[in-house]
Amino acid sequence: MPLKIALAQINFLVGNIDANVNNIVESAVYARDQLNADIIVFPELTVTGYPAEDLLLRSDFIAAANNAVYQLSGRVAGIALVVGFPELDGNSLYNSAAVLHQGVMLACYRKQALPNYGVFDEQRYFAPGNQPCVFEFNGRFIGLTICEDVWKSGIIDAAKQAGAELLLTLNASPFNSGKIHQREAIICKQIKAAQIPLVYVNQVGGQDELIFDGASFVANSQGDIVFRAEEFKEQISVIEFDGDNPITSTCAPHYNEISSEYKALVLGIKDYVRKNGFKGAILGLSGGIDSALVLALAVDALGHDKVEAVLMPSRYTQTMSNEDAVLEAEALGVNYHIISIEPAVNAFTGMLAEVFAGATKDTTEENIQARCRGVILMALSNKQGRLLLTTGNKSEMSVGYATLYGDMAGGFAPIKDVPKLLVYQLARYRNTLSGIIPERVLIRPPSAELAPDQIDEDSLPPYEVLDPILERYVELDQSAEEIIAAGFRREDVARAITLVDRNEYKRRQSPPGIRITTRAFGRDRRYPITSGYRGI
Amino acid sequence: MPLKIALAQINFLVGNIDANVNNIVESAVYARDQLNADIIVFPELTVTGYPAEDLLLRSDFIAAANNAVYQLSGRVAGIALVVGFPELDGNSLYNSAAVLHQGVMLACYRKQALPNYGVFDEQRYFAPGNQPCVFEFNGRFIGLTICEDVWKSGIIDAAKQAGAELLLTLNASPFNSGKIHQREAIICKQIKAAQIPLVYVNQVGGQDELIFDGASFVANSQGDIVFRAEEFKEQISVIEFDGDNPITSTCAPHYNEISSEYKALVLGIKDYVRKNGFKGAILGLSGGIDSALVLALAVDALGHDKVEAVLMPSRYTQTMSNEDAVLEAEALGVNYHIISIEPAVNAFTGMLAEVFAGATKDTTEENIQARCRGVILMALSNKQGRLLLTTGNKSEMSVGYATLYGDMAGGFAPIKDVPKLLVYQLARYRNTLSGIIPERVLIRPPSAELAPDQIDEDSLPPYEVLDPILERYVELDQSAEEIIAAGFRREDVARAITLVDRNEYKRRQSPPGIRITTRAFGRDRRYPITSGYRGI
Repeated sequence: MPLKIALAQINFLVGNIDANVNNIVESAVYARDQLNADIIVFPELTVTGYPAEDLLLRSDFIAAANNAVYQLSGRVAGIALVVGFPELDGNSLYNSAAVLHQGVMLACYRKQALPNYGVFDEQRYFAPGNQPCVFEFNGRFIGLTICEDVWKSGIIDAAKQAGAELLLTLNASPFNSGKIHQREAIICKQIKAAQIPLVYVNQVGGQDELIFDGASFVANSQGDIVFRAEEFKEQISVIEFDGDNPITSTCAPHYNEISSEYKALVLGIKDYVRKNGFKGAILGLSGGIDSALVLALAVDALGHDKVEAVLMPSRYTQTMSNEDAVLEAEALGVNYHIISIEPAVNAFTGMLAEVFAGATKDTTEENIQARCRGVILMALSNKQGRLLLTTGNKSEMSVGYATLYGDMAGGFAPIKDVPKLLVYQLARYRNTLSGIIPERVLIRPPSAELAPDQIDEDSLPPYEVLDPILERYVELDQSAEEIIAAGFRREDVARAITLVDRNEYKRRQSPPGIRITTRAFGRDRRYPITSGYRGI
Repeated sequence: MPLKIALAQINFLVGNIDANVNNIVESAVYARDQLNADIIVFPELTVTGYPAEDLLLRSDFIAAANNAVYQLSGRVAGIALVVGFPELDGNSLYNSAAVLHQGVMLACYRKQALPNYGVFDEQRYFAPGNQPCVFEFNGRFIGLTICEDVWKSGIIDAAKQAGAELLLTLNASPFNSGKIHQREAIICKQIKAAQIPLVYVNQVGGQDELIFDGASFVANSQGDIVFRAEEFKEQISVIEFDGDNPITSTCAPHYNEISSEYKALVLGIKDYVRKNGFKGAILGLSGGIDSALVLALAVDALGHDKVEAVLMPSRYTQTMSNEDAVLEAEALGVNYHIISIEPAVNAFTGMLAEVFAGATKDTTEENIQARCRGVILMALSNKQGRLLLTTGNKSEMSVGYATLYGDMAGGFAPIKDVPKLLVYQLARYRNTLSGIIPERVLIRPPSAELAPDQIDEDSLPPYEVLDPILERYVELDQSAEEIIAAGFRREDVARAITLVDRNEYKRRQSPPGIRITTRAFGRDRRYPITSGYRGI
């Protein structure tokens, strides 16, 4: 008898168990009635959302999640539900998957491989399971696994040895650039070696720093992908198994690298705004490339009527910067204000004149300008209930080329994990969809415009040099000597690394941003502020 | 033959391997020459400092730490050194203790119990050891254990069964209120059950959010403490073992709860300023209790000449607030400036008049005042190289009663983990040492003075009600229903919990502060910002 399995690639809200359970029920009913599915598989920790972090330490939260699963078993007849939940057994908590069918829990599997690296803290919350779980359903023997389990061969093999003819895998596997290919390659290799077909269901959506890309798939026992859901979209699909192997179905194509990065950023902004109940977003528009890109991303995420731009010129702002900012706002149909910061800068200069008498001008005066902009933007954000988006990129965050409480002010930092060179690539990519960023913005030397004729290269190596050094130091943990050996000048490496080391205190107070690389600033990189380590 | 063991209760600098190794050598030479010690025992992960966090993922850092230990073995003759280090073996990293003697590594123990809860992330970095380690020294059999190991009975028992007659324990056990008593009670109970004497060496000092209190001790096989080092101070001491048991020595007394909290806060400020190379500290002095306490702590930590206060009155500042602030600064001999924020507030009001036309006044206008103060304080901090201390307490941080980039601006938040009622207790305690905070400050109703006749209780439950609710919700993870059942009004609980839940975004951008409770905001409490969880 053929078996139809639905893949529920759904966007859940962390912490809202009631809403998630309703979403599960509606999806199951849809899969049963519209897709004739026999089983529907949900992502990892479905009922709580992933990652629920320290909510998992609250006994009321855990009790609610367990109760929800027990009640869920009776709510939808005629289809089996495979849902993830934090299973409480005595004093131990497990990252589990339950099979619910006709009011009965047919099986419950406890995740064995608990990732505790990078952005993951699963050993903070969960005890590991230690055995495979295979259940019989309509004459077939089906094994359960959860996320990290299938990146390792031993657990798949054990499930097969326990009798599984087919594996269902519940996942919350976050995106980074190149991850989708990597994920499919590694898992399909395991599957091919074990000779067992697999149904892989990943969640989709943004959750603080993390993006989940979906890209759920089904592979046959030869490790060939016979179905793939769309990337970065909710989708409930069904695949039919006839005998041991799945019938080949549609495979949504992979997006190329730049468009998947763009889509990840758009989804991240959209979900942060929507899930946190903001009325829209605002941002400072400088005429530079960073704010131009963030404006485009915000409009693509929220619509032009939900985004507002603020131009805040000073005596150091070049005319073309204002012109370009206006062109960008108008090209995207976004409402904008122009508010000169000069009155506030003059006020502070006067207020500080006595205590600063005799002191040399330094970055203090530049920071005051940036902070006046921060006050204006936060006032608008507070008054309007709009999320303030900061426009700093990863290169700036790395070396601290940003003003705390100034241009770093804001609730969310969309391009915080996007290096400067990639900012240009993403802007050019966006212009291929519709020409919204003036060419001049793409070719001018980058400048903070906080002092006369200032450009970034006055105090930093060129981004063509800086960005690859930063990637090696921050993402790959290479030492200074390794980076120099790879062909970079010692003085550039020393400058870059010293700035990274010194600026941990700034990053600690920066808003969360969207992770698109293999190591973002945030929970992914946990450095001490107080540190005698010097990379060079 | 008697055996003399030195306890090196020392303040190390995380990340600075060279400085730590020099410190180890100097301490060992002192213990050998001045104390006639045969062995000197250092704290956990001596050479890297604790916690080194993601520095432990850098291969250059790990290589340097391992090389340092191998070289160390030849640097001091005539005394055995027991030092902690991150031991690399193949691809695995262990939290280890090496015994170095006459150029040879006599033994090396790998920590078995790796804490991965609260502020600890040890399973992110280390693989667990799986066996006891006992070495022979001058005819005695000595066992090694590391920190978490001795909180559990199994590991102590295994060491004894492996032949240990005496245990050495290397520790980095952070302070919280009551921790010292708890630590001694639990460990001495294990020791008594196992009938084995123990030498417990803890590090001392501040490291970002954490305070290590020292309080190293020696217990005999009956679980009686026969020696205790001073709390919150560096100290190298020696204890003699004659036969199986240590000879009773001096026991430094325990400080009472309030004075140990005060000492922890002072040490935290002192080490953050010193280890990060600041020239001193500045803070905004409002005439309220919070800034009065932070000023006293800063002066006690750094000396009056290293601290500067800034009074920033507005139209809503009461005369007595200014008077009291001046009295506090003068009582402590601290230099102060008075800078009215009115010119900047007026400038922003004018700049925003057009976009705010027709809008109702709300907290936006209050936030502008707080942010003008933030700009002034940061300008002084930038110009002078002084650390800006923020003065917000834990009650405010919990419910978000603070302005992001306003009164939350600063590099370090000394009383971030001190609830408001404890702020009063600490202030009164400090006044018993010398009367520096005017009585009026201690009895006035708390006010942010951002609107006419404003007091905190306009928008918050009284602190006598709020603080215990927050303790139950934040520190003890109690549910709303549990708190209500304990006798609190549902509306107060609802108000407090809702504010805590909603303000995670503010806390995420707050400066680090000193942890003195069992759960501080920071790495100790990892909540999602985007969350549908509602505690009530």
